[in-house]
Amino acid sequence: MSEPTTYRVMLMPDGLILTASQGDNLLDLLRKGGVGIAAACGGDGICGTCRVVVEQGEVAGSDRGMLTDEEYNAGYRLACMSEVIEDIRIRVPERSRRPAEEGHLRGLATSQETLAADGWRFAPPVFKLYVKLNPPTPEDNTADLSRLEKALSDMGISGYRITLPVLQQLSDCLRQGEWAVTLTLFKGPEQLVVTAVDAGDSRNRLYGASFDIGTTGVRGEILDLVEGRVLAQGVEYNGQGVYGADVISRIAYAGKPGGLPTLQQAIVGTMDKLVRGMSARAGIETGELSHIMIAANTTMVHLLTCLTPRNIRLAPYVPSATHIPSVYGTEIGLKTAANTPISMFPAVSSYIGGDIVSGLVGTGIFQRDETVLYIDIGTNGEIVVGNREWMVSASCSAGPAFEGGGIRHGMIATSGAIEKLSINSTDGSITVSTIGGKPAAGICGAGLISTVAALLDAGFIDPRGKFQADESSLIRNTGEGPEFVLVKSDATADNRDIVLTEIDLDNLIRAKAAMFAGYRTLLGSVGLDFNNLDRVVVAGTFGNYLNVEDAIKIGLLPDIKRDRFLFVGNGSLLGARLGSYSTELIAAGRQVSGMVTNIELGDNALFTDNYMAAMFLPHTDDTLFPGRGRQT
Amino acid sequence: MSEPTTYRVMLMPDGLILTASQGDNLLDLLRKGGVGIAAACGGDGICGTCRVVVEQGEVAGSDRGMLTDEEYNAGYRLACMSEVIEDIRIRVPERSRRPAEEGHLRGLATSQETLAADGWRFAPPVFKLYVKLNPPTPEDNTADLSRLEKALSDMGISGYRITLPVLQQLSDCLRQGEWAVTLTLFKGPEQLVVTAVDAGDSRNRLYGASFDIGTTGVRGEILDLVEGRVLAQGVEYNGQGVYGADVISRIAYAGKPGGLPTLQQAIVGTMDKLVRGMSARAGIETGELSHIMIAANTTMVHLLTCLTPRNIRLAPYVPSATHIPSVYGTEIGLKTAANTPISMFPAVSSYIGGDIVSGLVGTGIFQRDETVLYIDIGTNGEIVVGNREWMVSASCSAGPAFEGGGIRHGMIATSGAIEKLSINSTDGSITVSTIGGKPAAGICGAGLISTVAALLDAGFIDPRGKFQADESSLIRNTGEGPEFVLVKSDATADNRDIVLTEIDLDNLIRAKAAMFAGYRTLLGSVGLDFNNLDRVVVAGTFGNYLNVEDAIKIGLLPDIKRDRFLFVGNGSLLGARLGSYSTELIAAGRQVSGMVTNIELGDNALFTDNYMAAMFLPHTDDTLFPGRGRQT
Repeated sequence: MSEPTTYRVMLMPDGLILTASQGDNLLDLLRKGGVGIAAACGGDGICGTCRVVVEQGEVAGSDRGMLTDEEYNAGYRLACMSEVIEDIRIRVPERSRRPAEEGHLRGLATSQETLAADGWRFAPPVFKLYVKLNPPTPEDNTADLSRLEKALSDMGISGYRITLPVLQQLSDCLRQGEWAVTLTLFKGPEQLVVTAVDAGDSRNRLYGASFDIGTTGVRGEILDLVEGRVLAQGVEYNGQGVYGADVISRIAYAGKPGGLPTLQQAIVGTMDKLVRGMSARAGIETGELSHIMIAANTTMVHLLTCLTPRNIRLAPYVPSATHIPSVYGTEIGLKTAANTPISMFPAVSSYIGGDIVSGLVGTGIFQRDETVLYIDIGTNGEIVVGNREWMVSASCSAGPAFEGGGIRHGMIATSGAIEKLSINSTDGSITVSTIGGKPAAGICGAGLISTVAALLDAGFIDPRGKFQADESSLIRNTGEGPEFVLVKSDATADNRDIVLTEIDLDNLIRAKAAMFAGYRTLLGSVGLDFNNLDRVVVAGTFGNYLNVEDAIKIGLLPDIKRDRFLFVGNGSLLGARLGSYSTELIAAGRQVSGMVTNIELGDNALFTDNYMAAMFLPHTDDTLFPGRGRQT
Repeated sequence: MSEPTTYRVMLMPDGLILTASQGDNLLDLLRKGGVGIAAACGGDGICGTCRVVVEQGEVAGSDRGMLTDEEYNAGYRLACMSEVIEDIRIRVPERSRRPAEEGHLRGLATSQETLAADGWRFAPPVFKLYVKLNPPTPEDNTADLSRLEKALSDMGISGYRITLPVLQQLSDCLRQGEWAVTLTLFKGPEQLVVTAVDAGDSRNRLYGASFDIGTTGVRGEILDLVEGRVLAQGVEYNGQGVYGADVISRIAYAGKPGGLPTLQQAIVGTMDKLVRGMSARAGIETGELSHIMIAANTTMVHLLTCLTPRNIRLAPYVPSATHIPSVYGTEIGLKTAANTPISMFPAVSSYIGGDIVSGLVGTGIFQRDETVLYIDIGTNGEIVVGNREWMVSASCSAGPAFEGGGIRHGMIATSGAIEKLSINSTDGSITVSTIGGKPAAGICGAGLISTVAALLDAGFIDPRGKFQADESSLIRNTGEGPEFVLVKSDATADNRDIVLTEIDLDNLIRAKAAMFAGYRTLLGSVGLDFNNLDRVVVAGTFGNYLNVEDAIKIGLLPDIKRDRFLFVGNGSLLGARLGSYSTELIAAGRQVSGMVTNIELGDNALFTDNYMAAMFLPHTDDTLFPGRGRQT
């Protein structure tokens, strides 16, 4: 690749010169060059605040947008929409300059991610705009709304819609703020919408929330959308749990009289609870959320928005909708964020939901040339293989074992859950680690994998998942069959023994067999095997911890080179967070949902064969797990 | 004017030839020529169903709109957006042809109007669209919403928004209708919105409502938006009445804790009651209303939408908003029409509301060259003078006398109200006519005017409004002053005497004096007097009846040539009805609200002088009423 051409960008009146490469975005260049230039909308070409005058030369790609013909002919351009293609001389008008004290430093908060989408601009779906109005006089007693519209028009902003709640607060805010207000604008898919108004200048406070709404657990975050960082996190059981453990039983419940609204209220209640808790920890008011970004499976989205999920489970598995128009909190009954716009990642199909699309976006798989197997392990298992060119997906009913469901003492990965277990090879004694170091309250998915791997290593269970009672004194027989005591009652949170049963083991084996059969069947359908993969990305709600070696030992993950594995934690929540930071990634979600081809495993004979073959620890075919005995 | 140029429009494949004038709208021409051409949206260039192919020649004014470049280059044009400018040969494609049995004859229901806007197309703000989809198969199990979008796209429709309630019903409607549904689309000011979905074909049922929301009374109509006719009407007292008789006392009440939502609930409750009653009489379900058009004064609009009206009564009289974005029933709490879009005529100022704009539009004053004085007599009096070029307005607090307010036995013009009273010149006996011929329940504005004129003629009161006790045995003295017995208790609805008091007379004189002073001051402000007027249009909530001669006798109307007067009844409701029939008239409302210049009479010394001079029956200046003694 030859050296890229460079150009000189001279800034008037100072005469300062910046060096640009062919095609550089002018707004980015000015910011990097330390020029305080305003761009209230984050650079989406909407707000018109980053105007510059091109005095000599020309820029490319400049959408005339909101500029009038007069302005355009006078050389005005939106810096955010302009690319440098030759030497130019420009002037940043006074009103486009941002006072130094307003500088918003935006840490993108993605450096701590193991794998994340890159190349995107920090341009959240909401932004704030400070507007100063001329007070009314007897000669100019035009209505408050008309006065505001005039001021916005003078700033070059048009084509927006004002919601009724904003209009209801406008008059009081204008007078409280002495004719200065801050508007919150939402860049909806169809239109720019003014969703909130504050008296005075509130530009330094802009918050959002992101959610991963799972069938069993719901995870959320409160985000600072000025600085681009996570302020608080939270996790709660999905309040729908009492109406069924998996999506099929929830769909059945939704079909009963009053069932659908009951399920909606349950999940909305969970979200309200999370928002209250996280807002308190983040030190913000619940009413301050300006945007909510949701990643959820197709059924959860239907239940959240009260769309009938009936046809999701009837062949040919047609959901009511895969993409949902943005809704406001009040439309779904969310009390803590009634006037907040809610965006959702679109789904691919009935069983590949927006949560998976979110993961593919958040991890940047949609941007990469390398072929990746993306595995999301939750109550359902979803699998995607592909790269930026193509993607194929499948889902398999793993059952809720990895979320602790169907496990006697199972629980989601939260405080007090056993996440690691080791067995002393000398005396056979047990050591457990729990999340937060609290007394053990139960066992989560990661802990279950660790435990079964350790029991298998120690010879306390055989490859069929049966206890070897002679090998350990911790194995005891009860009326309901044998069980293994993981933690004695004196060390647990509620003073009862925490045990693992053979039924638990059987559920785990079924779950991991479904996942493994899914990988093999999906890869086979595109003529690939594990060795063709550049990377295996494992996502799931395992908390902060998943031991890949243990997962291979039990046959949940394939026995391939370890450096190809990457555990990204909650990929869905990662995508929802990054979607909150950039409309480009929300747009990427729409692109991804359209490019994934889904394959139904339900009627696939090969899947059934692969499933039966995987009902063994790690697998009936030893050649698939050559490294099985290797120590971590 | 020379003979207009005519052109030949040849229709293929039949070879039929229509004759067109320069600039004729192609859709209108085809319809007049008996060509069955579909135009689901009524000809607003939105639905794309009226496509034709121009095979030879060209049409003008054709907005490319929803046509693709490919279609446009292939000669496709939207007939509704095309004007004939030369000889052309066109072909109406099969899918643009409307089956004969679908023909919707539209009686415009305006022929019975005394004065109405003309030249507008029947194109209501809502229309229905029948959509047939391909059922899903295992090979094509795309979501219901995507399937619908595909079908709409095939019909050339794009850029719409689908509301959540529609999405919530879509799946069931599609299956009930065997993959055929009828959508209701609302041509919102910003965007086309799908607001309802029915299973199967419901195109023959499309209903709207129009309302005149007055401070004292609320009038409504249910309209058939397929045929263009009134199906039912209704009137109720505004439920806010218990919180104050006029806008000033309502605004005061709105300022109390909880006052504003209480007033909102009161007016919404009145609307709900009217919708229930009128729907029953019209034989439709309340849920079938597809659009509501409202004409109301500025304060009523604020209270209806929960905008603070506080600043309406504080100098410099700044309303929160003069134009309200369209809202849905649910946003204001309307139970009978939760998912129905509601449009409102914009206001001019705090005291010249959308009700007046509606009247100016409905009567077509905004279209005419002649100079008109438009008078709307209600709880407030509003006056506009002007023509298509200019308009000036003023409002005066007439008080609620003409709506029966402040009158001992006053009532709004509804069943049982005395609307006419005559006195036998021989024996002084009284005859009354009541609305509906029912036993008298009270006296309405028209009845009050008739009564006072008759009393004045008979010499029972003097020009100062004092009873002449010697002249009639029906005048009696009570502890509260003299009163005149209009109807004895044995002939009234509730078996009590219906009387007129001197206090009633005083209130009436103040009201008519305010109106008359308003006309004179407003006309004077533009250098006109009564003789410069081509027409005086009187609107008001007088029911079906106002005797102009009586109104002149008491000095409510000026003593000018009788043929210049036109009583149009409820001009605001007329405008709301016609707005329900045509988006062109809704657009005209926006134009009118922007062109009217309002003059504040409050601080005007000339108004005060004119008011004092008018506190006499008919006036202190006899020369203004030369024909005063003339008999009708």
